[in-house]
Amino acid sequence: DILSQGQYATVYNFLSLVIASQLFTAVFLLISLPRVLPRYRQAITVAIVVCGIAAYHYFRIFDSFKDAFISKAAGGAGDYSQAVGVSFNEGYRYVDWLLTVPLLLVELIAVLALARKVQSGLLMRLVPAAALMIALGYPGEISGDNGLRGLFGLLSTIPFAYILYVLFVQLSKSLNTQPVSVRKTIGRLRFLLLLSWGVYPIAYLLPLLNISGADAWVFKQVGYSVADIVAKAVYALIIFGIAKAKSYEDN
Amino acid sequence: DILSQGQYATVYNFLSLVIASQLFTAVFLLISLPRVLPRYRQAITVAIVVCGIAAYHYFRIFDSFKDAFISKAAGGAGDYSQAVGVSFNEGYRYVDWLLTVPLLLVELIAVLALARKVQSGLLMRLVPAAALMIALGYPGEISGDNGLRGLFGLLSTIPFAYILYVLFVQLSKSLNTQPVSVRKTIGRLRFLLLLSWGVYPIAYLLPLLNISGADAWVFKQVGYSVADIVAKAVYALIIFGIAKAKSYEDN
Ligand SMILES: CC1=C(/C=C/C(C)=C/C=C/C(C)=C/C=O)C(C)(C)CCC1
Ligand SMILES: CC1=C(/C=C/C(C)=C/C=C/C(C)=C/C=O)C(C)(C)CCC1
Repeated sequence: DILSQGQYATVYNFLSLVIASQLFTAVFLLISLPRVLPRYRQAITVAIVVCGIAAYHYFRIFDSFKDAFISKAAGGAGDYSQAVGVSFNEGYRYVDWLLTVPLLLVELIAVLALARKVQSGLLMRLVPAAALMIALGYPGEISGDNGLRGLFGLLSTIPFAYILYVLFVQLSKSLNTQPVSVRKTIGRLRFLLLLSWGVYPIAYLLPLLNISGADAWVFKQVGYSVADIVAKAVYALIIFGIAKAKSYEDN
Repeated sequence: DILSQGQYATVYNFLSLVIASQLFTAVFLLISLPRVLPRYRQAITVAIVVCGIAAYHYFRIFDSFKDAFISKAAGGAGDYSQAVGVSFNEGYRYVDWLLTVPLLLVELIAVLALARKVQSGLLMRLVPAAALMIALGYPGEISGDNGLRGLFGLLSTIPFAYILYVLFVQLSKSLNTQPVSVRKTIGRLRFLLLLSWGVYPIAYLLPLLNISGADAWVFKQVGYSVADIVAKAVYALIIFGIAKAKSYEDN
């Protein structure tokens, strides 16, 4: 695809926005860690790691984007076409998700501070399902073939549905043990999760719907960027809020 | 060898996955260090250093790979052939192992917190054997000659067998002094070690078995990547789990 200067600048600036958001959410949480009780620090530590991993990958994605599209005009005016010998590596996103999506679920379960048995039972279900979901999506994404994309997309939706089932059905019982002051926030957090996670399968579907071209591509990159900020940084800040409220309550 | 775009992307993404895994395991452990009792911090500190060393080497390996294979097509489509004047440096792996393999054994012994004498007795045997094992493998790896590879591989297997003997026979007595709550985990950790360490001599054997070509090479790089994540990052997290359980027990 060929990007106009405006499209190039838009993607460029959104990618940088994600780096700044993730990196400094991690820094903020690192500094704030001592402000929650020890029993909630596991959740915040995982959140720091998740935002750090995302920042690492966005540095990589940013560099990959800069190398992959070049303008031949003075001052970078004019169109940006694909460079010789370099491809924009969409695979970084999958590598990122493989690590961060299971950890996002660990974060959520950790802040609930449930009984040891209930906690490990939930994690044993959620973590492998999350890793499986991403691993199954990857072959469909990198194969250029729409048939394979459809097949692997379908397979990947099975663990996705299972995760939602565990979060929205099985987890609901445990929420009754949470202090009243945070129950509403936890409920809202689950919906934020559903909303932001939904972006990824939709973006995956675009080629199947024959939506392509530079506009669609730019829109997808912007969509990923916004979803990544919500699903990791905003999510982490809400988790921190819950941890602070519960620390106050427990004292 | 010539790599297809899919093969190139696979190696590329796996190498980046290892960087992210090692780097952020180190970060996670660094933040979590105060959560274990001082007597277990030596083990966690060594684990942080091991993952840090691995991240450093994988940055190097990643760059070496990117320089060594190039595509001449727009957008990096098409095949990747070997660049003129640059080789992919497999030697980084041996440099990494020379430092990290002895340290992985130090980590294990440190978390057991055995009596001083027993501990130093074990280390005096394990650390030199580990260094010798790697040093003996190196000449066989860089010589292009299968005879030398076989000879040095055989020599290197002697200290390898000795390490396994110390870990699975001599160490077993000391395990009885460990709290019951972690005994099972330590047993499992030893098998994880055996399983992941076994990958390296198998990869070393491939040229002797006449297994070569792009597919085998990609498979080997992926195998190394997964084994390195298991043998260092996953291993470190299990050691952290043991240290946390023992800290709790001791309190
Ligand atoms: C269901 C489904 C998918 C789901 C992906 C999800 C749910 C990704 C979540 C990513 C997150 C939360 C990133 C964090 O920032 C894939 C793999 C696209 C493949 C198609 C089917
Ligand atoms: C026995 C043997 C070998 C053993 C290598 C090992 C056991 C390496 C372990 C590496 C680890 C644990 C890396 C950590 O991430 C060599 C040197 C290949 C040479 C052939 C014979």
